Amino acid sequence: MKSYRQELTFEVPARRAFINITEQVAEAVRRSGVREGLCLVNAMHITASVFINDDERGLHQDYDKWLEKLAPHEPVAQYRHNDTGEDNADAHMKRQIMGREVVVAVTKGRLDFGPWEQIFYGEFDGRRRKRVLVKIIGE
Amino acid sequence: MKSYRQELTFEVPARRAFINITEQVAEAVRRSGVREGLCLVNAMHITASVFINDDERGLHQDYDKWLEKLAPHEPVAQYRHNDTGEDNADAHMKRQIMGREVVVAVTKGRLDFGPWEQIFYGEFDGRRRKRVLVKIIGE
Amino acid sequence: MKSYRQELTFEVPARRAFINITEQVAEAVRRSGVREGLCLVNAMHITASVFINDDERGLHQDYDKWLEKLAPHEPVAQYRHNDTGEDNADAHMKRQIMGREVVVAVTKGRLDFGPWEQIFYGEFDGRRRKRVLVKIIGE
Repeated sequence: MKSYRQELTFEVPARRAFINITEQVAEAVRRSGVREGLCLVNAMHITASVFINDDERGLHQDYDKWLEKLAPHEPVAQYRHNDTGEDNADAHMKRQIMGREVVVAVTKGRLDFGPWEQIFYGEFDGRRRKRVLVKIIGE
Repeated sequence: MKSYRQELTFEVPARRAFINITEQVAEAVRRSGVREGLCLVNAMHITASVFINDDERGLHQDYDKWLEKLAPHEPVAQYRHNDTGEDNADAHMKRQIMGREVVVAVTKGRLDFGPWEQIFYGEFDGRRRKRVLVKIIGE
Repeated sequence: MKSYRQELTFEVPARRAFINITEQVAEAVRRSGVREGLCLVNAMHITASVFINDDERGLHQDYDKWLEKLAPHEPVAQYRHNDTGEDNADAHMKRQIMGREVVVAVTKGRLDFGPWEQIFYGEFDGRRRKRVLVKIIGE
């Protein structure tokens, strides 16, 4: 069995953003030498997501508005987590909706994807350095 | 290490439906010959889900109503994604709530499940051919 | 390839609770002898979650309030699932928001975590015995 580990690093200048990381994950799969296996991609921070969906700007605007409706940032005083001095309680909720991680099949040395699947890093509390973990196992 | 790959195909006549695919996944596990490992089951399309829950008709009605409340289909013009000519922005949101994939343990050659766990394909934008990927690795 | 399986058991006296299970999962990783691989942790019951987030009491209060807003327990008669004699339809929904499972990388014999990642069992319909499955594969 082979295994391969790589970190991706992000420093998003805004509070929230969606970044397409498909090519970086595909490159990790190539480096791993794994032909058949599984590829885990997860946010290492708890106010960020990794998810798979469409690379379409309008959809990302919709996601942002929708998540803000389901878990509004303001007023920050509505959240007990923010009593600790943070203002990111909403980011912990948005991340639960969008998910921490994806697991993707590796087949014949490539990410085994449907026609529109793209991997995104979802940042909900940016303006600091954060990491994503790629772990690949297989043969 | 063994690996096994299979696609399941669906063409749901309605916009939305939940379909129990547990037996098809269990059959894939048997064919794989894997005794100990992991089984990934994921929607290959971004307006559909694979999730694990109860095979109970009333619950599925509740899910449908609840998802429609959290991410309504109408009015379609509320979503920027639909400016592209699509009318399925809501389906991209419903799929995030219900999830893209499940990972199930394989133990002694079988899906290692609790008493009520069943695997479902959740369709949120049907009336076309769609696929689910089953990927099994182990020994 | 090595594989290891362990069940964790919970009997939560309240309807809802969040329990930090990180140390129990870390102990399973040590017992497994796996140095490089993947660790699946999933609820075996369909009204419970396993998720990764922060071990902060205020945040857990926020999660509880937020989930109750998105999928209220009362009135129980609003859910068709509860026509079966159950009163836990809301728990099936809360579990979908928070997720069934996490997959964590195992690197150098340890859970490969970011600085604040902790694994939680989320109970949404307690007062009975329930189980969590830990399955580890790798080398």
